[in-house]
Amino acid sequence: MSVRVGVLGATGAVGQRLIQLIDPHPEFELAAMTASESSAGKTYREAAKWRVDAPIPDGVAEMEVGATTPDDVPDDVDLIFSSLPSGVGAEVEPDFCRAGYVVSSNSSNGRMDEDVPLVVPEVNADHVDLLEVQRDGRGWDGALLKNPNCSTITMVPPLAALDGAFDLTDVRVSTLQAVSGAGYDGVTSMEIIDNAIPHIGGEEQKMESESRKLLGSFDGAEVELHGMDVAASCNRIATLDGHLENVWADTEEEVTVEAAEDAMAEVTGIDLPSSPEQLIKVFEEPDRPQPRLDRNVEDGMGVGVGGFRETTDGVQFNCLAHNTMRGAAGASVLNGELLNQRGYL
Amino acid sequence: MSVRVGVLGATGAVGQRLIQLIDPHPEFELAAMTASESSAGKTYREAAKWRVDAPIPDGVAEMEVGATTPDDVPDDVDLIFSSLPSGVGAEVEPDFCRAGYVVSSNSSNGRMDEDVPLVVPEVNADHVDLLEVQRDGRGWDGALLKNPNCSTITMVPPLAALDGAFDLTDVRVSTLQAVSGAGYDGVTSMEIIDNAIPHIGGEEQKMESESRKLLGSFDGAEVELHGMDVAASCNRIATLDGHLENVWADTEEEVTVEAAEDAMAEVTGIDLPSSPEQLIKVFEEPDRPQPRLDRNVEDGMGVGVGGFRETTDGVQFNCLAHNTMRGAAGASVLNGELLNQRGYL
Amino acid sequence: MSVRVGVLGATGAVGQRLIQLIDPHPEFELAAMTASESSAGKTYREAAKWRVDAPIPDGVAEMEVGATTPDDVPDDVDLIFSSLPSGVGAEVEPDFCRAGYVVSSNSSNGRMDEDVPLVVPEVNADHVDLLEVQRDGRGWDGALLKNPNCSTITMVPPLAALDGAFDLTDVRVSTLQAVSGAGYDGVTSMEIIDNAIPHIGGEEQKMESESRKLLGSFDGAEVELHGMDVAASCNRIATLDGHLENVWADTEEEVTVEAAEDAMAEVTGIDLPSSPEQLIKVFEEPDRPQPRLDRNVEDGMGVGVGGFRETTDGVQFNCLAHNTMRGAAGASVLNGELLNQRGYL
Amino acid sequence: MSVRVGVLGATGAVGQRLIQLIDPHPEFELAAMTASESSAGKTYREAAKWRVDAPIPDGVAEMEVGATTPDDVPDDVDLIFSSLPSGVGAEVEPDFCRAGYVVSSNSSNGRMDEDVPLVVPEVNADHVDLLEVQRDGRGWDGALLKNPNCSTITMVPPLAALDGAFDLTDVRVSTLQAVSGAGYDGVTSMEIIDNAIPHIGGEEQKMESESRKLLGSFDGAEVELHGMDVAASCNRIATLDGHLENVWADTEEEVTVEAAEDAMAEVTGIDLPSSPEQLIKVFEEPDRPQPRLDRNVEDGMGVGVGGFRETTDGVQFNCLAHNTMRGAAGASVLNGELLNQRGYL
Repeated sequence: MSVRVGVLGATGAVGQRLIQLIDPHPEFELAAMTASESSAGKTYREAAKWRVDAPIPDGVAEMEVGATTPDDVPDDVDLIFSSLPSGVGAEVEPDFCRAGYVVSSNSSNGRMDEDVPLVVPEVNADHVDLLEVQRDGRGWDGALLKNPNCSTITMVPPLAALDGAFDLTDVRVSTLQAVSGAGYDGVTSMEIIDNAIPHIGGEEQKMESESRKLLGSFDGAEVELHGMDVAASCNRIATLDGHLENVWADTEEEVTVEAAEDAMAEVTGIDLPSSPEQLIKVFEEPDRPQPRLDRNVEDGMGVGVGGFRETTDGVQFNCLAHNTMRGAAGASVLNGELLNQRGYL
Repeated sequence: MSVRVGVLGATGAVGQRLIQLIDPHPEFELAAMTASESSAGKTYREAAKWRVDAPIPDGVAEMEVGATTPDDVPDDVDLIFSSLPSGVGAEVEPDFCRAGYVVSSNSSNGRMDEDVPLVVPEVNADHVDLLEVQRDGRGWDGALLKNPNCSTITMVPPLAALDGAFDLTDVRVSTLQAVSGAGYDGVTSMEIIDNAIPHIGGEEQKMESESRKLLGSFDGAEVELHGMDVAASCNRIATLDGHLENVWADTEEEVTVEAAEDAMAEVTGIDLPSSPEQLIKVFEEPDRPQPRLDRNVEDGMGVGVGGFRETTDGVQFNCLAHNTMRGAAGASVLNGELLNQRGYL
Repeated sequence: MSVRVGVLGATGAVGQRLIQLIDPHPEFELAAMTASESSAGKTYREAAKWRVDAPIPDGVAEMEVGATTPDDVPDDVDLIFSSLPSGVGAEVEPDFCRAGYVVSSNSSNGRMDEDVPLVVPEVNADHVDLLEVQRDGRGWDGALLKNPNCSTITMVPPLAALDGAFDLTDVRVSTLQAVSGAGYDGVTSMEIIDNAIPHIGGEEQKMESESRKLLGSFDGAEVELHGMDVAASCNRIATLDGHLENVWADTEEEVTVEAAEDAMAEVTGIDLPSSPEQLIKVFEEPDRPQPRLDRNVEDGMGVGVGGFRETTDGVQFNCLAHNTMRGAAGASVLNGELLNQRGYL
Repeated sequence: MSVRVGVLGATGAVGQRLIQLIDPHPEFELAAMTASESSAGKTYREAAKWRVDAPIPDGVAEMEVGATTPDDVPDDVDLIFSSLPSGVGAEVEPDFCRAGYVVSSNSSNGRMDEDVPLVVPEVNADHVDLLEVQRDGRGWDGALLKNPNCSTITMVPPLAALDGAFDLTDVRVSTLQAVSGAGYDGVTSMEIIDNAIPHIGGEEQKMESESRKLLGSFDGAEVELHGMDVAASCNRIATLDGHLENVWADTEEEVTVEAAEDAMAEVTGIDLPSSPEQLIKVFEEPDRPQPRLDRNVEDGMGVGVGGFRETTDGVQFNCLAHNTMRGAAGASVLNGELLNQRGYL
């Protein structure tokens, strides 16, 4: 029995990746797509400036795109994936939840709301039950689950492994982020050729707060943020896909390079279709992971780490994940699988 | 009265910048150039694959290039600029010093030797007098002065300003370095298009040790390294020139964004021809400095800073300098001017 | 006595170059700037996302930007430079001409109109007198003069030299055009990193028609198009500035590589401030001219040529010019100087 | 029954693609690899700086690499793929042929030799029987078959389709070639970032002669070159893979856009494992094919065409192929399959 799914914001950079992931998905069946008012009524082929380097899946190209309102989505859709600009998301996602839809959202609005679970299934799947608090409080038949920002997702699995074994106290992270993270029109060529931009609006704050929520503890009623101190510095560079990050992790317990690598290499995926067998790939070559060579580890759902060095207070390392797969579309799909597994649909 | 100068390694990326700087220099006159054995005897035009976006200076193109030995440099040369691979530098620089030449070197060999001054004139000009210790100890008529690594130079002026006002305790720095820092053939196009490389061999160690020597104190006999803890993470990206760095500076004294900016903005250049009027340009726009737009601040001899944020233990900011000008050729020329001013020629 | 000038579309990529050229200009004084409705009333610093790698000229940053209507431009402005989207240009340029302003326009609208001179001063300065026909016919006090498209300008000076000596019959040209030619937001980073786009809307047609008008003959009443057959193929690549073009020029008379090079090397600039001493620089190195190394020849107002080979029917070669200088802003300024010299202001 | 194959030059850019293609190949089994003297004796993992964005195939990483001489290749190897620098190829390929090996070579040496077949199986498979003339003449037990240069392969299938239907008279072609075509170290980052190079040594001559041999006729004794006039202009741009070409094809018979597209769309692959079902994919979008989006058409073995326009004497269009797959490694493998099918092993 397939789950009938809809995609809000289906024509954008993440939306196209969602379409690519849902088409062959063993549990999901694409039943509705929406985009901005100006695209409504067009076929997907007309509405989307398709930029993935594989063709539009058969059957999808001629599907009609609706407007982004509950009225344009059939009632028998069980699960909604949302990848909207945050302003639009803040406005329409509650409408969908009120109308009874369960929404797995990649949009940044509401991620830090107290009754909205922010989940990376391999890290904090238990937080999903915050949805019960949410339904009680908001009186929704539907539900709203969020995945974190792409740059946050990249570092959280390795940080979770370190935290479990050595207790994190301070994290410093510097990012080298790909242009696809800003959407198709987000970075112009004149801005980035022979250049780098040491600022991505709001990104540092997202990394600093979302990581503490993901590593926080849920007691059945609320999520207590992790007490670690996180400071981020975010940069845009001329790569297409794959966020690379330099991390300094200070720990309570003493940590060696070998112990840190072991803690990460041990992390397995979980029992969901999109979760990879090995979540974190540890590279021994000092110059890896690299965006172009390693962003497709585990079909873009793995996280690569390398370049470990001991520091006075902990360990430093590099991590990399595919920002529109593990960091966005794949993250939402994985959360959708979790919602299905846990009976929230 | 011009100082007659020679350039060792004149055909490389930094060598070409040296030629470009010396040609119009008010104090220096180019009298000799050397390169590898295979280039010796050729004209500079033949030997150098000239890649600067301005023509080879008149008069230089037809000068003959010698081999890199004291025998191939006229006796009346007063000052040698050296930009050799470190292995070659380690071998031949002492020969030149022994033969009586004063060498201002950009090569990385010997920078941390106890009797070799490592100098950025605006930061620690007083260290130059370590040369007297050096001459006493080694029995040289000549002398060997070093400038630091390009990635170190970029962050040291702003760090010196902070240290003077607030006392540094810990520094974390992540770099986004331009390909020219590796020389003309150092990074292939297949390595860097749509990619970044999170490793530059030995660079992190250089930043961690050289910065402590530059900010160390010289008591007339030896340099005591600064006690701060420095940890670096170095990345190569697809920019031509200009190293961009994200810095977290923890301080003993409390520091605000405004106080940090003020401390940096106050730093003036010093009384040497290549020292800019204002050493550090503070950008108010949060997305500056950027490599392509800001690497030529003060003709490539300034340092740009921006993106200040307060952290729990200090301040974070970004800095940028032109790696082959302020970070290499210009640094050596500035040190040559200092040697001249202080009577070491 | 300075000529007071205004700039329509002052905040765009070409507009910023116009500001950069007018500021130090010996004959012109900036008296007015306009932009879109949403920018009107702002200072230039606020309105323009300045992207030139030199600061906004002093005095200009705090000037107020007006809306693009004759009402927002003072009456005592003698000359208008226009760099508007063609749709806007088609609408407002006639308003300015009717109101008595003389307009030197880079906008593509109306270039092939029979009574509009299309001029590159070093090639067909005599066509400027078509303005008398224009004024008679349209009853304007003002006047409208156009420079051609950036990709056309790049090839026309060398083609004119060949045509003068050997009579052109057929031209095939393939272009590798820089992203700045599309304006600041014209090409997204996701479109061009690790990519090339073999299509620029309308560009091929512009090159094919405009080149024949520029090399056409003016008899005092009308311009007869040159009879040569021109076919263009236009590509966008990941360069910031500088259009590179591969040209096959078939000629009536026999032509050798040496004769072709000589014909081009002989072309001098003309007696206008922005015209370079030597218009065409002939490179002997087979791999030159290159965009990054050679786009600034003669301060961006020269044209580089190289790579000559004899073909069965003529000669093939490469040419390069800075597309926003010689190819746009500089072209308009040069035409403004011509209008001033010839007494049209 | 697998064919045991060896690869000469296995560590280079094309060599790595050969390994990638042979590993899962239904007919071939990798039995030997050679590289330069300095790599001999190392494992493949040690010897190759692997740069393909998929891991080294299992089993290959630990195989030992030999020197490039017949002595280092087992006797029971049936087929040799060669991708050597042309100087090396000219020296050692005859040694292998003399020793009885059949060599499918991508190296440029000897391609125009009268008794060496130059073959793209879908275009001129019949030329393979020139090998009988070769064996007679040279007294070899082995044999030497060549595939053309990557830039030639890209345009020849569409040209063959046009020639079959409309008879080609003149061809002008301008290329935008990827950096991988020059090998891993062939183009430095400093040469190509924000730049293009309008010259690739010898490339124009290869395209001009090889295309006439491929479209020439073989009468059982010799190949008569096609009489068309071909002139090429070759450029290197900042793409990783995929050569894009602008072609003007003048024809004897009249040709329309539709007829040209139909002639190309009709071309099917042939009965060999690596030949795609449809050889030429015709794009209707005017801005396609593009390197990044379309180089993987038919797993990199297809050719994309688009942008058709009628010209005075024929038609112009763009074509694209993956230069290290269809243009090099895949071309050699395909020729190996042909040799196997025709009984030459």
